[in-house]
Amino acid sequence: MAPPTPGNPDFAWMARALELARAGGLRGEVPVGAVIVRDGSVLAESHNRTVERHDPTAHAELVAIRAAARRLGDWRLTDCTLYVTLEPCAQCAGAIVLARIPRLVFGARDPKAGMAGSLDNLVQDPRLNHRVELMDGVLADESSRLLRRFFRARRGKGGQP
Amino acid sequence: MAPPTPGNPDFAWMARALELARAGGLRGEVPVGAVIVRDGSVLAESHNRTVERHDPTAHAELVAIRAAARRLGDWRLTDCTLYVTLEPCAQCAGAIVLARIPRLVFGARDPKAGMAGSLDNLVQDPRLNHRVELMDGVLADESSRLLRRFFRARRGKGGQP
Repeated sequence: MAPPTPGNPDFAWMARALELARAGGLRGEVPVGAVIVRDGSVLAESHNRTVERHDPTAHAELVAIRAAARRLGDWRLTDCTLYVTLEPCAQCAGAIVLARIPRLVFGARDPKAGMAGSLDNLVQDPRLNHRVELMDGVLADESSRLLRRFFRARRGKGGQP
Repeated sequence: MAPPTPGNPDFAWMARALELARAGGLRGEVPVGAVIVRDGSVLAESHNRTVERHDPTAHAELVAIRAAARRLGDWRLTDCTLYVTLEPCAQCAGAIVLARIPRLVFGARDPKAGMAGSLDNLVQDPRLNHRVELMDGVLADESSRLLRRFFRARRGKGGQP
């Protein structure tokens, strides 16, 4: 599906996810941001927090899903849309299915680890007990550029690529 | 590979994971238990906590991985073995890869959602940046029996199957 244009709510929520991604990058986190929206407002949002929390599972999507479920007092995130600047990995795609999130919008594809269409499509796997409506490519160039700049700067400092 | 016999450390650690699974079941959680072992001692352990925490991500493996990383102060769980009574789902298989866990031992296969050999094998996917040594079938019958009894009792009470 063609990505939405400015003025569209999907574009606005992804712009918010990109702001979070940028904020994460400034704190040394891989710059990925996620926002969970329900009834036109933010239920939960996060950037990656793996460095801050010494937590390999603390990808933006997983942190936001946990916060949203805590806020609702329900593990089922029905009627929610999850916006994330980068295609989810296996862990996060699996968590989206576990939480029964009905709709996922992501920005850039991740050809190395993306599991929502690149390597596999776990969020629409007919063998699992939940399938997700999917849109990709929203602010994809901005998201990719942010990630490229982050990794280039990190290599420049002699960190892990 | 043939499952180990009693007296083998893998058998003893899986017996501990089964105790945790049973304790979870008594609290209304799907009875799955996980133990992370390093240098011959427990680094972290948990049963499922999705009901208690209203957290769709709180599978036994994920809770144990987060606790182990917090304890080490490092997101890389090198030199660890993760024991879990049921084959990991996509989320947990993905988390095992993210945490760089070198070895996974599980009990029963999960033909509906298992992603360590049943539906797919995400922990040994050559396209990802980490691959896990894998053993399955350890106390598999005991683990399956526990799960079957739990779901049978829940259906009897009119709960979701």
